[in-house]
Amino acid sequence: MGIQFWFSIGSTYTYLTVTRLPAIEQATGIEFEWNPFSIRAIMMEQNNIPFRDKPVKTAHMWRDIERRAQKYGFKARVPAPYPLEQFDLANRVAVYAKSQGWMKDYVTVTYRKWFQDGMPAGSEPNLSETLKEIGQNSQKVIEAANSADVEADYLELTDRARSLGVFGVPAFIANDELFWGDDRVEDAISWHRNGRVV
Amino acid sequence: MGIQFWFSIGSTYTYLTVTRLPAIEQATGIEFEWNPFSIRAIMMEQNNIPFRDKPVKTAHMWRDIERRAQKYGFKARVPAPYPLEQFDLANRVAVYAKSQGWMKDYVTVTYRKWFQDGMPAGSEPNLSETLKEIGQNSQKVIEAANSADVEADYLELTDRARSLGVFGVPAFIANDELFWGDDRVEDAISWHRNGRVV
Repeated sequence: MGIQFWFSIGSTYTYLTVTRLPAIEQATGIEFEWNPFSIRAIMMEQNNIPFRDKPVKTAHMWRDIERRAQKYGFKARVPAPYPLEQFDLANRVAVYAKSQGWMKDYVTVTYRKWFQDGMPAGSEPNLSETLKEIGQNSQKVIEAANSADVEADYLELTDRARSLGVFGVPAFIANDELFWGDDRVEDAISWHRNGRVV
Repeated sequence: MGIQFWFSIGSTYTYLTVTRLPAIEQATGIEFEWNPFSIRAIMMEQNNIPFRDKPVKTAHMWRDIERRAQKYGFKARVPAPYPLEQFDLANRVAVYAKSQGWMKDYVTVTYRKWFQDGMPAGSEPNLSETLKEIGQNSQKVIEAANSADVEADYLELTDRARSLGVFGVPAFIANDELFWGDDRVEDAISWHRNGRVV
């Protein structure tokens, strides 16, 4: 059993995680189960709105992401457009992509266009350009992402996240232990390997 | 010039920082300027109340502190009593202690009694037992902590923190760069040494 990785496209810190995780998966040999869902629904239920009307805290968040991206070896053009207008569509495409086997490509490329080129995920031109870049038919994918089946899967993943105690993203579950934040990836790996954080 | 360390007794994650920082100061040779102030005043101004009415998020916070304390080599009995009833008194004692040269001893011991023995900082018996343990006269210190001079210093430190952009604690300022969170101590040290996070 690997580590569950719960995320929503729309989360700012998730940019760091999706961009660095493929290399971590390769280096550690640990399988991460990428699960897109709607953290927005859960956070609204829990009255957890960390950045609205908090300009000082928000300014630090962008600067922190910029510094940490540099630490990890990639760029972040901050502030990125935020919040996303097409949050649900961006994530429903990920849910559909998961069923089709190309989710990681979609997620990492759409985040790159959002955080490096300033194009909001889920909106045009990000969506069509991302799909084109990874060799998918834009019209067909968006139609599928808007289907009742994908909506049902999206709700089911969100229910599952809620029942696991996920309250923010990125989140990681290693042997039933929940970790929150890009800065806890290493703790989750440690827990997976040792049953404790070292 | 060293690194500024801004904190309030009452912050949960600050337990990790004050407990591990003396060893870090010794190991790195970097001087940290410990500054107690009222983060509560600033967070209320900024509508930043991260844990009130958020039981799921709060549960993770306690577990995260427990795991990280173990990682750092010390204990945390969680949940600790929270929030503190005598937040301001706990911090005004720290302000007075700073002027007298025994602040670090006071802060680390009162946090230890709060997070290891379950006695809230700023209240009895924590306050008197802490002062006794570090060789201070409890009655004299509490009288001084309630003086107008100490109150003025406390407000001045709080004004200074606000003007520096501190919005949460623990916070660190290295060469004018602000870092927030116990999990950013290493980033602040890196910035201090290299002008970037590595």
